[in-house]
Amino acid sequence: MGDPAGIGPEVVLKAMTADAVREVARLAVFGHDEGLRRAADRLGIEVSWHRVGGPAELASAGDGPLVCDLGGAPLDQLFGARATAEGGAACLRYITAAADAARDGLVDAMATAPIHKQAIAMAGCPHRGHTDLLAGRLGVRDVVMMLVGGPLRVALVTMHIALAEVPEALSTEAIVATGRITAAALRRWFGVAEPCLAVCGLNPHASDGSRFGTEELRLIEPAIVELRSAGVEARGPLPPDTCFVRAARGEFDAVVAMYHDQGLIPLKLLAFDDAVNVTLGLPIIRTSVDHGTAYDIAGQGVASPNSMIAAIRLAAHMAGVRERPGQ
Amino acid sequence: MGDPAGIGPEVVLKAMTADAVREVARLAVFGHDEGLRRAADRLGIEVSWHRVGGPAELASAGDGPLVCDLGGAPLDQLFGARATAEGGAACLRYITAAADAARDGLVDAMATAPIHKQAIAMAGCPHRGHTDLLAGRLGVRDVVMMLVGGPLRVALVTMHIALAEVPEALSTEAIVATGRITAAALRRWFGVAEPCLAVCGLNPHASDGSRFGTEELRLIEPAIVELRSAGVEARGPLPPDTCFVRAARGEFDAVVAMYHDQGLIPLKLLAFDDAVNVTLGLPIIRTSVDHGTAYDIAGQGVASPNSMIAAIRLAAHMAGVRERPGQ
Repeated sequence: MGDPAGIGPEVVLKAMTADAVREVARLAVFGHDEGLRRAADRLGIEVSWHRVGGPAELASAGDGPLVCDLGGAPLDQLFGARATAEGGAACLRYITAAADAARDGLVDAMATAPIHKQAIAMAGCPHRGHTDLLAGRLGVRDVVMMLVGGPLRVALVTMHIALAEVPEALSTEAIVATGRITAAALRRWFGVAEPCLAVCGLNPHASDGSRFGTEELRLIEPAIVELRSAGVEARGPLPPDTCFVRAARGEFDAVVAMYHDQGLIPLKLLAFDDAVNVTLGLPIIRTSVDHGTAYDIAGQGVASPNSMIAAIRLAAHMAGVRERPGQ
Repeated sequence: MGDPAGIGPEVVLKAMTADAVREVARLAVFGHDEGLRRAADRLGIEVSWHRVGGPAELASAGDGPLVCDLGGAPLDQLFGARATAEGGAACLRYITAAADAARDGLVDAMATAPIHKQAIAMAGCPHRGHTDLLAGRLGVRDVVMMLVGGPLRVALVTMHIALAEVPEALSTEAIVATGRITAAALRRWFGVAEPCLAVCGLNPHASDGSRFGTEELRLIEPAIVELRSAGVEARGPLPPDTCFVRAARGEFDAVVAMYHDQGLIPLKLLAFDDAVNVTLGLPIIRTSVDHGTAYDIAGQGVASPNSMIAAIRLAAHMAGVRERPGQ
């Protein structure tokens, strides 16, 4: 359900009513039963569901959407449009319960609505966001953020750091880890038997033979050699300004981008409203909306559920591939 | 005509025969009459033109396309597929004569075919390419490289340097100069009376309030203030991963990008084959193909003239706006 104070409850309720969701998945919303009812009333969304008292009851519930009631923040914080410790604590309960349920096979996959880093910090959480939190909860060290949208899948080697810190943060080890985790996820969850990865250069024209920078020679080329010797078909280092066109035309199964905007600029250009964030490397399937809590528009009924719907649909698709790998 | 050893003669000949060119411009090819004839024969391109002996004769020539014959490299170097001093010297003659002719009003605009930096270096030219060469020839210090393609116009603050050098190379002065030159060119040559510029941040999410980097606060915001006080409507610093979508939807007249791939990744994604490079800040109109000499496919007849045609069409359009600013 995400942070009760943001647009999470709204986009979740809208997704519960969407045909595009009902066709592919049965939802179990980990959140607050009474909060969701009040939100639906306030927003005029007609939707019914069965309440269950906890994850253990999920298996025995009847048809239709479920709400796994884990309690909420005080109800006056619903759409409260600000970070609070109670809101942070509530969404942390939802996330950990859902992650455990996915790990234990009680649900097939997890799609997350937005939380606010300040709210979870106020609730005493040491992690910066969902991804770190889930890696910690599930005992995993290396995770990869992959964005999926339109014709592109883009995995990032570095994420939310200053551009000036990117060259130092890159390493052959990090590029290899990103490539291996991405290739494994493409096989397991995306039905790609022999993934072909495009590996971007860091510099213009991939440095044009070390004319502008040496990271391609020092870091990226050795990573590609290592990936290939580990059985991963990796191509590059490719000039960043042309490799996304090639990927969009279907030449590669995913692009490994060296920094946030190298991957996000083309992704958002081709899939502005329905890009999905996928966390690779976890033992569970986890997708996420590609937007924040948007406190400024919370409770107004104007939030687009498109990213939430796309996140749920992708999670369902990945779960289907995992269950029926041969198809 | 560009470097005789590359695909320049081929794309120029193909452009001479294109309806999309004939409809908007009369071409005067600055190059080598006999070389072009042999190229046309070899490639099976049917095209006729009038030869003139030098730029001074252009005004008195009859109808149809012209070739301003400035001599060539030895003919065995046509499509020779390698950089030579003679080829470099030949294309330097073509470029300086064409630039002078544009400056003197003998032609309305200049569109350049590809040259090779190694060839012009072998011919003793101290400049790295067309842009530096033209700035030197025409006595200009600050020029801006703008890419035009699909729905985007993107001006670059920094160009062919390593990504690690970008933060150091940025300055408020350079951003202001890029914005002013871009706005002036939009008014003069693109018919935009009151240009609105998107100014990109450098860092992910434009640093999200200095959380990832301080260049927005230290360099980019002051540049935007200065541009506004100089009468240029500049917006930003904008998150790089969403500002190109907004520009593509028409919210801005041009985007000022901080580094090569920030601008080129979205540009090539939306206009792979027909992006045009425009040099702003010169006293003449100058456009260029967005590709190199492609020695590896020279003389085979397989080179696409699309970028050459787009460069000629854009130059003609800009000249039309300059002549009839009110329309």
